[in-house]
Amino acid sequence: MYEGAVQDLIDELGRLPGVGPKSAQRIAFHLLAADADDVRRLVDALTQVKARVKFCEVCGNVAEEERCRVCRDPRRSPTVICVVEEPKDVVAIERTREFRGTYHVLGGAINPIDNVGPDDLRISQLMSRLADGQVTEIILATDPNVEGEATATYLARLLGPMGLRVTRLASGLPVGGDLEYADEVTLGRAFEGRRVVHG
Amino acid sequence: MYEGAVQDLIDELGRLPGVGPKSAQRIAFHLLAADADDVRRLVDALTQVKARVKFCEVCGNVAEEERCRVCRDPRRSPTVICVVEEPKDVVAIERTREFRGTYHVLGGAINPIDNVGPDDLRISQLMSRLADGQVTEIILATDPNVEGEATATYLARLLGPMGLRVTRLASGLPVGGDLEYADEVTLGRAFEGRRVVHG
Repeated sequence: MYEGAVQDLIDELGRLPGVGPKSAQRIAFHLLAADADDVRRLVDALTQVKARVKFCEVCGNVAEEERCRVCRDPRRSPTVICVVEEPKDVVAIERTREFRGTYHVLGGAINPIDNVGPDDLRISQLMSRLADGQVTEIILATDPNVEGEATATYLARLLGPMGLRVTRLASGLPVGGDLEYADEVTLGRAFEGRRVVHG
Repeated sequence: MYEGAVQDLIDELGRLPGVGPKSAQRIAFHLLAADADDVRRLVDALTQVKARVKFCEVCGNVAEEERCRVCRDPRRSPTVICVVEEPKDVVAIERTREFRGTYHVLGGAINPIDNVGPDDLRISQLMSRLADGQVTEIILATDPNVEGEATATYLARLLGPMGLRVTRLASGLPVGGDLEYADEVTLGRAFEGRRVVHG
């Protein structure tokens, strides 16, 4: 509907996840009216991210050097590895400040519908990290949904015979939530995983 | 939370209208995983839009030449001018295929809260288009909300003494809404049923 360049931009923005045609139009006109400097900063950020960001050769997290910030940090314990699906899961866990070990980013989860099998994930890289026997615990922190559970089960079986501790993040009621709004599966898990408070 | 370039991109994306921190993160990781070609296409579209898109010297619509597609089209009647707030309103009206005249894009609406007065809109340019006496009707198609109504009232008063027909889009458009979100049928009906404000 628009002349060349505006429509091209709307089309390109509309390809981004979560951006529908109306949002794409709104963003395009915002940029059209914005300072050239603002647009240049966005263009630079896009260009830089492709030029500079790599994936950590150890854990698969995003990194600007050969190894990511966590793997470079000498204070992080190399004996515990927390296995997650995506780099954004690393950020979510870092925010808790509960974990002082290292990560392993799989790059997704087993998903037969999208044709993602174990070979498409960074599982062999995880196995080679276990070769020197330094690692004592693997925490499976894949998402608590069907694909994440399937991936955790697969890894638990694979890691079972290796003589290390394999744990899974607890499922239960979200803190600050209402019990009555919890879905049956979550509430069921919370029951299964109940812990002794007294006696 | 992320290393340099990824966080820069998330920050820049988060500045776009309607893009919150979670969406910005999601889009950033989508682009990180996307083909370099896809990102280059987006970068090109952003660069092109600032380099190539101008505003029509006649009506203020977006244009890639001196005059926009509507003003260049010899089949469009120059005797009827439809006054709208933004270029996206032109697109919304074009979609109805009800209107064969030309447009005038004000670049906004009178809004005391945002400090937008009549002098900030392209009203003097509209007046000079009326100088040759060719125009017989002005259709006021500003948004059917407070600012749009105020702008229409202001223009109706200004245009009143000029001996031309001044009309306003019929109600039928949901009051309090944005013109660009109206469906084609409603917008088409509003065109048909436009009422005389003066003359």
